[in-house]
Amino acid sequence: MKIPSKYIENAVDQISSLPGIGKRTALRLVLQLMSRSKEEIEDFSNAFILMKEHVKKCSTCGNVSDIEVCIICSNIARDNTLICVVEDVRDVLAIEATESYNGVYHVLGGIISPMDGIGPNDLNIPSLIDRAQQGSVKEIIFALSATMEGDTTNFFLYRKLRAFEISISTLSRGVSVGAELQYADEITLSRSLINRQPFEV
Amino acid sequence: MKIPSKYIENAVDQISSLPGIGKRTALRLVLQLMSRSKEEIEDFSNAFILMKEHVKKCSTCGNVSDIEVCIICSNIARDNTLICVVEDVRDVLAIEATESYNGVYHVLGGIISPMDGIGPNDLNIPSLIDRAQQGSVKEIIFALSATMEGDTTNFFLYRKLRAFEISISTLSRGVSVGAELQYADEITLSRSLINRQPFEV
Repeated sequence: MKIPSKYIENAVDQISSLPGIGKRTALRLVLQLMSRSKEEIEDFSNAFILMKEHVKKCSTCGNVSDIEVCIICSNIARDNTLICVVEDVRDVLAIEATESYNGVYHVLGGIISPMDGIGPNDLNIPSLIDRAQQGSVKEIIFALSATMEGDTTNFFLYRKLRAFEISISTLSRGVSVGAELQYADEITLSRSLINRQPFEV
Repeated sequence: MKIPSKYIENAVDQISSLPGIGKRTALRLVLQLMSRSKEEIEDFSNAFILMKEHVKKCSTCGNVSDIEVCIICSNIARDNTLICVVEDVRDVLAIEATESYNGVYHVLGGIISPMDGIGPNDLNIPSLIDRAQQGSVKEIIFALSATMEGDTTNFFLYRKLRAFEISISTLSRGVSVGAELQYADEITLSRSLINRQPFEV
């Protein structure tokens, strides 16, 4: 694809550097941008520069925030004896959307993945140990992906945290709500048999 | 989705203003951008501002170009008695990729679409008439989409151009190369029967 303008080519390269966007899609998006006014394009571009300039990590939980302590950690209505450990801000949003969790979070910023060269030292783990050491935390919930990397990270955290008097739990694994049994994979189904729960009316 | 930072929210809004990108995908892309360095984000943002500043329309064909007359129109090896009329720069790239066309182009910048409020006056049509009037053009090929809007535009252009001594053609319509006959739609198949061609060995 030989684009007749090096400026458009550069813009296409930048857009297609985003994960999951190919050159062809990038060109479509760039041409749509081209059709906008100068001011609109400036607003578009400045959004990313402003974001990088102003967004920080919450000093308590590591979640993205515009202020020193994020709106969740600084909310006195939330139970800060209960910490939910997640991979990134998208998981926080997913759990917040359930409207069934009133504790606080700890955002690791990734999971341990030797294949991708991500070790425990690259993650927001020391501050979790600090929070556990302070003594007010009663329970920590591991809410990481149900993958090998997630399990590895869970185990690593468990070994660091078991010394403290804190109960540690993970999300329950089982057949999804609304899923048909015949389509559940074997591991999920076998786990949900082992972890069967008392029937409640 | 309640994002805990108004700067990230703004960046997500900007990315999701692009066609075909929803809020969830936008957030994924924005978080990936957040993980880049300040310089990388500046390069990303500046690409669009520079593009808007420097890219112009070729004064001859209306294609995007960094210079007054685009590299195709100013290429003396190309046959400028043959003009291919297309909707936008992506069509130019698609035809160029075939490596089987040596004429020049005329980029309309859209097609007539009353539903979207696009009339003939919104398109790069007067300059096509000008080019036809100059007298050196021998053939004009209509290479617009095979849709109702494309056909409407073809017909409109035909009425404007038929006064000149220029042969007018359109791309052939028929069963795609490599396609199985049973999956071709009725209109395509019927057109390709009507326009059947002498068998060549």
